[in-house]
Amino acid sequence: MNKRELIRRTAIEIIAEEGYYNTKVQIIAEQAEIAVGTVYNYFSNKEEILNYIFKVEFDKRLDILKRLKVEAISFKEKLNLFLEEHFQELETNPATTSVLVQESQLPRKHSLKAVDDFINELPELLAEMIESAKKKKEIRDVNSSLIANAIFYTIRGMASKVVLNEHYNFDQTKEELMNLLWCGIKN
Amino acid sequence: MNKRELIRRTAIEIIAEEGYYNTKVQIIAEQAEIAVGTVYNYFSNKEEILNYIFKVEFDKRLDILKRLKVEAISFKEKLNLFLEEHFQELETNPATTSVLVQESQLPRKHSLKAVDDFINELPELLAEMIESAKKKKEIRDVNSSLIANAIFYTIRGMASKVVLNEHYNFDQTKEELMNLLWCGIKN
Repeated sequence: MNKRELIRRTAIEIIAEEGYYNTKVQIIAEQAEIAVGTVYNYFSNKEEILNYIFKVEFDKRLDILKRLKVEAISFKEKLNLFLEEHFQELETNPATTSVLVQESQLPRKHSLKAVDDFINELPELLAEMIESAKKKKEIRDVNSSLIANAIFYTIRGMASKVVLNEHYNFDQTKEELMNLLWCGIKN
Repeated sequence: MNKRELIRRTAIEIIAEEGYYNTKVQIIAEQAEIAVGTVYNYFSNKEEILNYIFKVEFDKRLDILKRLKVEAISFKEKLNLFLEEHFQELETNPATTSVLVQESQLPRKHSLKAVDDFINELPELLAEMIESAKKKKEIRDVNSSLIANAIFYTIRGMASKVVLNEHYNFDQTKEELMNLLWCGIKN
């Protein structure tokens, strides 16, 4: 495993366990069995490590959407598959998910670039898919950009809700969300 | 106007203009033409002033929901009226809205009690209304609590999106949201 990846994985475990505030670069280095100086060769501070953790996760979601976008299936199937793959990622990587959910509790004086990019890029890609589904009359006449953002915020909010609330589970949440969103836009 | 209200209104204007980080209790006192010590008679720090600003706004929304809950109108009308009144409040009080939207950028080391209460109480009240609408067959068979949270996150996310994005306006956003949510749950 390369050093950057080793630092990322180690940081995820520690932040998930201890919380972002209590995590020190020193501890990440110790746990990864590398020198603190080596960590600083890759990341200039703790925030940059966090930004990289987000970037890797966000890139995964962008990849899913980009792949689905060009597939020869209905928009309904695309939306369903996106929800399925997104929630599956969250469910199978509880430590990473715990870090992602902490995002909303982090200091925002300087916002994280990876988070900003994600909030802008993902709804944009989704809006293009919605626009194309609209032209094919798969869905009703909606404002694609607005609905893409609404879908994005719903999925984001509900993902963190599932993690923080023991009464919900990923499967049930995914099903309810899919029904809400699909019924909400179908023709 | 009582002192607490004077401090609240003055703080809203300054935070909206300067941002939460750049706002000092000293400046709020000067602008309100009262002594700094007087501010500290009502609030022990800047965070408490912010918490109170949120509390007033959240109480308004809870009042709207509580009033609508017992009105003899359909759930569709209730949802529509809630969206209308909520977005109207946001539109007619731009300074307050600007403070509310900054919430997602604020430090969360110690979360604000008013924000936490709101995030828990409002969806709970909405879930009760959804449950009752379900029993009356006004809407389809949904998981009331889950859908209440999904609706809550969508409204919250889109409200901040409207404020931060000049391409959207409140009226259009309210219409699109109402259609998405109502179509999403109707029978």
